[in-house]
Amino acid sequence: MNDENNIQEIEEAYITMPKGFKANGVSAGLKGNGALDLALVYTELPATVAGVYTSNLIKGHSLERSIKVIDSGKKLHGIVVNSKNANACVGNVGREDAATVAKAVADCLNVEEDTILTASTGVIGVRLPFEMIIAGVPSLVEGLSDSKEAAHNSERAIMTTDTRPKEVSAKIVLKDNTEVTISGMAKGAGMIHPNLATMISVFTTDVEISKDLLQKMLKEAVSHTFNRVTVDGDTSCCDMVTVFANGASGAVIEEGTDDAKLFQDALTGLSEDLSRMIASDGEGATKFVEVEVFGAKDEYDAKLVVSSVAKSPLCKTAFYGMDANFGRVITAAGYSGASFDPYKVDIDLGDFPVYRDGCALLFDEEEVLEILKQHDLNIKIYLHEGDAYDRMFTCDFSHDYVTINGSYRT
Amino acid sequence: MNDENNIQEIEEAYITMPKGFKANGVSAGLKGNGALDLALVYTELPATVAGVYTSNLIKGHSLERSIKVIDSGKKLHGIVVNSKNANACVGNVGREDAATVAKAVADCLNVEEDTILTASTGVIGVRLPFEMIIAGVPSLVEGLSDSKEAAHNSERAIMTTDTRPKEVSAKIVLKDNTEVTISGMAKGAGMIHPNLATMISVFTTDVEISKDLLQKMLKEAVSHTFNRVTVDGDTSCCDMVTVFANGASGAVIEEGTDDAKLFQDALTGLSEDLSRMIASDGEGATKFVEVEVFGAKDEYDAKLVVSSVAKSPLCKTAFYGMDANFGRVITAAGYSGASFDPYKVDIDLGDFPVYRDGCALLFDEEEVLEILKQHDLNIKIYLHEGDAYDRMFTCDFSHDYVTINGSYRT
Repeated sequence: MNDENNIQEIEEAYITMPKGFKANGVSAGLKGNGALDLALVYTELPATVAGVYTSNLIKGHSLERSIKVIDSGKKLHGIVVNSKNANACVGNVGREDAATVAKAVADCLNVEEDTILTASTGVIGVRLPFEMIIAGVPSLVEGLSDSKEAAHNSERAIMTTDTRPKEVSAKIVLKDNTEVTISGMAKGAGMIHPNLATMISVFTTDVEISKDLLQKMLKEAVSHTFNRVTVDGDTSCCDMVTVFANGASGAVIEEGTDDAKLFQDALTGLSEDLSRMIASDGEGATKFVEVEVFGAKDEYDAKLVVSSVAKSPLCKTAFYGMDANFGRVITAAGYSGASFDPYKVDIDLGDFPVYRDGCALLFDEEEVLEILKQHDLNIKIYLHEGDAYDRMFTCDFSHDYVTINGSYRT
Repeated sequence: MNDENNIQEIEEAYITMPKGFKANGVSAGLKGNGALDLALVYTELPATVAGVYTSNLIKGHSLERSIKVIDSGKKLHGIVVNSKNANACVGNVGREDAATVAKAVADCLNVEEDTILTASTGVIGVRLPFEMIIAGVPSLVEGLSDSKEAAHNSERAIMTTDTRPKEVSAKIVLKDNTEVTISGMAKGAGMIHPNLATMISVFTTDVEISKDLLQKMLKEAVSHTFNRVTVDGDTSCCDMVTVFANGASGAVIEEGTDDAKLFQDALTGLSEDLSRMIASDGEGATKFVEVEVFGAKDEYDAKLVVSSVAKSPLCKTAFYGMDANFGRVITAAGYSGASFDPYKVDIDLGDFPVYRDGCALLFDEEEVLEILKQHDLNIKIYLHEGDAYDRMFTCDFSHDYVTINGSYRT
């Protein structure tokens, strides 16, 4: 997080902290056992909305619909998200089901159907149980509130294999001393990888801002945060990050101003925080791993190297086993497709040197084990070929990842 | 295997079946417990040798040396392979150690040092225990024999996490009724992925053939076999496939002849057999999986799709869990980078249709489970965009993969 005095990150975050937003999460019975599985984030004041989506050719039907809605340029009232079912790969009925859900929510809120975004996350290839969802809509809408409790319920309702909700908030003091707020929530866990990483994330903010500027800022915020998270290298068909700006604070963000810079810093900072949370909470993860590359020839090569190391099952199982096997790191860099001289590569584990000039150092195994035992690992790779830098957030690969994904549908 | 009458694959295969080859495998103490870990394949008649190597920028020092030796164009006498240690990423001493081992073997055989190839496989970043290897050389050379037993010992000595030796042999009847033989052995298991797949493999044959033609044929044989195996998407730094042709049968293979075609078919067929064995015996594998794509726009796209599906941890854990989660297959195709219309994609599991026009079919779960219970799975993806085809061999992703790789060094 940017630590300028004008951006203050809030410890106890929730999605309805910005003015004018309400939320709720209920159980529509999709998950069973009364678990929350249907979320709504709503703003009475219609909001300017920007979105960034999965690069997967296969797009979920709820997402397909939302892209069209956002592209229309209309101001919007909210987003309804269901978990447990991705509404993907079921054909035309999937499109119809997404529209049916949006209409049910819009009718209940007394707004137009095309002012409500839809998002679905869960199993692919099974028809959305839209009747259960529709039956849950009245209580979903009735319970809308700006309370922390309602906000937390919405955050829990979008979770799939996540073990905990992910929420962030920051307050920004603008040049004229107006205080504005940004909040964000996300679900992640499995099938997380650029481009776009990764998950469903919704930001709310009470500033007024043009759609073009908001879109540009979201893209910038995402590029080195959500787009730098990998859990298993699989890119989901339902990933989206959206931001709703309803203007309720009265403050206006205009391009090229100091306020715009501040807003960008805050949005990027919160995106980074959510990205770290997603990697930490990857399916079966026991460790958070940040991979950094320094001195790559260019940005393209830097990305190839961090991506190759962060995705490598061999590296990730070694992190899990706390095995000081840095040969796997240099090997993954070597097959990344980046061009560099292997005999110039240095690698550090945190601040501890483990490779110099492409050669393994004889280090004290016990000392390195102490570092590997920590939850947060940091791998630094120095290529000495140029000035380009990149980093990626990932997690380790555990027995639980296999258990979770060997029987996800059942 | 090509089933032309002139190619006969031999059930009980061994590396010394072609005339003039001897082999042996001994324990030099690298693995401990008396396990075989040092192998030699030798031909008194010097052989023409071709080789194909890993595309990883990081190359093991034993391999670096072998590439130079093969490039010299000299006829060679053999290859010494040690397991347990990859002799990689240790700097100049690694180069010296490879030369030291080659010299010890060459001296004992009374041949020139630069007629013996070196290969090492195992842990990266730890200096080769060359003294132990050198101490094992006399018994290694003394036990050289063309017996099946000696051959099998050499095949076992090159194994790392392999659970069984991999060996193939075929006899070819040439146009003039001469019978010639090709044998091959391989070690695979983890860190297996194109380009080059993946492993150490040695072929022996008793034909006479020019180096250029042999190199061309080996490259062709490898391209859709060894280069289409993936275990975990990690490309090792020590992978090589070599073929020794010593001419002991008296038969000569010349370019453009029917015999050349026959020889190519046999070499490709044996390469395919070894590739299937490697995928079946991937680390922790409980299933062999063949992924095929039909109707891709072009070869490039076809490869992107098979590679993406065959590498996907989500697909591979679903195969392990026998979870009929074909949404993961189409999703992996979708993020592969290939261009196709998602609403035209069909997917079959073996001969059983599971996706049509990009939509999941409602199939009988019990019926599909019966197919998923089998050891060999076949996934067919039809893109309907063009005529290009590709396939890849892989395995599932199990708890044991994580166990094996969480503590490989220790």
